[in-house]
This record gives sequence, C-alpha cells and structure tokens, in this order.
Amino acid sequence: MTDPQHVTAAVLVIGNEILSGRTKDANLPFLGAELNKLGIQMREARVVADIESEIIEALNACRAKYDYVFTTGGIGPTHDDITAGCVAKAFGQKLIRNPEAERILRERIAQMGVEVTEARLKMAETPEFADLIDNPVSGAPGFKVENVFVMAGIPRIMQAMFEGAKSQLRRGVTLISVTVGSFIPEGTIATELGLLQDAYPDIDIGSYPFHFDGKPGSNLVFRGPDQARLDEAADRLRDLIRNLGGEPVDDGVVVPKTDD
Amino acid sequence: MTDPQHVTAAVLVIGNEILSGRTKDANLPFLGAELNKLGIQMREARVVADIESEIIEALNACRAKYDYVFTTGGIGPTHDDITAGCVAKAFGQKLIRNPEAERILRERIAQMGVEVTEARLKMAETPEFADLIDNPVSGAPGFKVENVFVMAGIPRIMQAMFEGAKSQLRRGVTLISVTVGSFIPEGTIATELGLLQDAYPDIDIGSYPFHFDGKPGSNLVFRGPDQARLDEAADRLRDLIRNLGGEPVDDGVVVPKTDD
Repeated sequence: MTDPQHVTAAVLVIGNEILSGRTKDANLPFLGAELNKLGIQMREARVVADIESEIIEALNACRAKYDYVFTTGGIGPTHDDITAGCVAKAFGQKLIRNPEAERILRERIAQMGVEVTEARLKMAETPEFADLIDNPVSGAPGFKVENVFVMAGIPRIMQAMFEGAKSQLRRGVTLISVTVGSFIPEGTIATELGLLQDAYPDIDIGSYPFHFDGKPGSNLVFRGPDQARLDEAADRLRDLIRNLGGEPVDDGVVVPKTDD
Repeated sequence: MTDPQHVTAAVLVIGNEILSGRTKDANLPFLGAELNKLGIQMREARVVADIESEIIEALNACRAKYDYVFTTGGIGPTHDDITAGCVAKAFGQKLIRNPEAERILRERIAQMGVEVTEARLKMAETPEFADLIDNPVSGAPGFKVENVFVMAGIPRIMQAMFEGAKSQLRRGVTLISVTVGSFIPEGTIATELGLLQDAYPDIDIGSYPFHFDGKPGSNLVFRGPDQARLDEAADRLRDLIRNLGGEPVDDGVVVPKTDD
C-alpha cells in the first residue's frame, strides 16, 4: 500500500436485495472501470447483508487493507438503511445530524413540496467527522470519512456522486490493455502463454475462453503500465497464435453475449 | 449456523476480470435466487483477484462462517487459473491429478480431436479428498471439498454444475416473498414502515425506491417463511398506503430498467 504507484481500492456493496438475487449489482463494474482509468486498482469487492455487525466487520477489514473503500447502498430513509450508523461505529465516531446535509435536504424537500419527516431527515445523519459528497440527482448527500466513501446504491445516483468525489482521489499508474483473440482454444495455447507470462512479469495476462460459431477460442488480455512492453508481448502472442495455425484478431474476437 | 432451519451460504467470485470491470458477474444473482429456492440464504459474496493468498484467506473466512461456500472461476487450463491449488492449500490437502477427472478429460479430448496437453490435464487437478462435480457442458469437472463447491466461472457451465450438485445440499426453510408497490415515496412511508417491521420481526421488509413517470415511489418486499403472516403484513401495508393517499400495486410497480 505504501508504494506510491500502486493505489488500491475495495468496494463494499450493502444490501439484502443483491444477495437474494432480486437486484443485479451494476455498481461494481462501473467502479472497477472508472477506478482503473484513475490508476486505482480495485482489489476486492464484498457484498454484505443489511446486518450491522457484518457491515462493520467488512468495512474495518477493507479500510485497513486498501487505500480507498467505496460503499454503495443503505443510505436512504427506511429502517433497512443502516450504513451511516455502521460507518460511525466502525470509526468510533458519533452519528450526528449533519447541519450542512440537513440544510441541503430541507431545501430539496421544500422544492419537492413533500413533507418534512423524521425519515427524510435521517438522510442527513453522518458520522461526526464526515465530509459530504454532493448528490446532484436527488439531493441527499453521500459522505466521506477518512479513506471511506459512502455512496447511494441506485446506480444513477452513485455514478453522479463518484463523479463529484473522484477529484479527491490520489491517482496511481493507469493500466492500459491490449487484447488479442483467436480460435486457438485455451488448452492448446496455455503452456506457451504461461511462459510468455513468466517473461513479462510486469504485465498481467488474462485468458478468457469462449465458444462461438461452434468453435472454441480465447481472448487474451495484456494489462500493464507501459504501452511499448504491451505491444512487444502482444506481438509475441500473435506469432504464437500463427505458429499454432490460428489467425490473431486484434481487440479480440467479439462474442455475442448470449453465447458465453 | 447450528439452527437446522437456517442454512447459509457464501459465494466467492474469483477473477481479475470482474474487479477490472471487464466482465460483469452473472453468477451471483443466479446463485442467490437458486439457493433461495432451496431454503439456503446467501449471506455474503466476495470478489477476489487471481492472487493465491487472497483466495485462501477469503475461502477460509467464508467456509468457517457459513454452511456452504460456492466458488466460481479459475479452474481452466491457463496460468491464471489457480483455484484448485488454493482450495487444496486452504484445506491442507495435496493437489493431485484426480484419476476420475483425468479419465473424463481424456475422453473429452479424444472426442474433440484436440491434442492432449499438460495444460488440458491441469484441469484434472483437485485436492486429494475432493468429490467431482459433473460438467455436462464442456467436460472438465468441478469439485467439492467438505462444504466448498468449486465451479466454473462461465455462467452456462456454472449453472449446469450447480444443477448437478444441488441434490447434495441440505435444505432450509424456503423464504417466500410478497411485494406491494405504490407512488408513495420512501420518505413519506418510512416511519410507519419501520413500525410495521418492528411488529413483524419474523419478516424481512425491504424498501426499493424508484423514480418513474416523473414521480418517486417505492416497492416494498416482505420476505419470510409463512404465507399467512406475509399476507397479514401486506394487508396492513396496503391500508397504510391508502391512508397516505396512495394506491397499492400488487407485485410492485414495474419500473423500466433504464430508469433506476
């Protein structure tokens, strides 16, 4: 974690509805891709239920281990929205009604012409030493405590919050990727590919098999910080594919989604 | 965990491609829904990178805590497929070339007319005391060690493996659900809903807000083991919605996916 070039993150997805299969999480792929653009590597994700002890345990494990933790979900007005209280307990801080958050919420409530309820004001609760994260979509802010960013679960709102908060993140080295695919199946190319991985320890080589048009094949993704090294390794892969009787396809073989 | 009625599970999704956002996980929602049908509650999910120490740590944490653990990913023929070795280490077992798995693989390889490679035979490696899980799709089996089921990452294969393995699972009480929606926003109904939750501690009430047709609303999901109790609680909710000037919608308000 102390390597200034490697900035790491974890995501904590909070909500029974994700675990029951009722709701498909869309925040993890979004955050994975967006953090990567900033040179921040997402190293782990956890999905936990709306249970205080579980949320606190997962949060404390992740915030000690990674540079940043992003939580999604559980900051609405209902009884099952318990994230703010859990974050306060995890940090040993008091849960307060945040004056700035209350001001924002009351303004929003007035605009909407709805009633000021205790439940709505609950969305102004934050740990005592939290900084707010702006919510341009629906008003109720997220917040940040030390290295933990607490955001909404609804993707549209989460994305807007992340957009506003990302300027605060320390950037690492952005990993770029080169993909080469072919109809050479994994089992045929795997040994040589392992040797190529050994020769390029600075590059992460991932192999993604597919079955398309009645034939097996694989897309090979090279990720690393240095374009020249990636190009060099990819050229060696293209030679390897040709030696095995295949035709390398730049950017990978496009496989229809239903055929995975 | 010792309560015979509560059977719990965790899912461990293994693979850099999920964390980088390259691939959207589809196994978690599938397993959440399928386990629920068997009366098994998915309590946690973790997504970890292709790093041995991380996989072992997550696996050991989850297998101690839940009745079952299902892993997906990392059992193919390439260098980044390290799940079998990690499971062996987690259980303190030797990694062996499983004779039955080798027989299945060699048969499949002969059928396919491809070469027998060391990489292909790597897919026959399991911890020494593993039971195989059939793979009717592509041959290479998954396996089970004690309470841990090791399955492929490709959804079609994972689903076929789960189908074959599920008869081995101890079933708990199946939770059923009743959903009632309305255009009453969460902030208006939340306090009364919390009181309803207090009155029905045997029911898990989830609230899922939406914004549709220019209006905010919420779908309220009651989950529990007893249909009569669910119906009773749902009737009280319908009264509550009507008292607040709303119209209860059975099975919830259907919200187009793009509008979340």
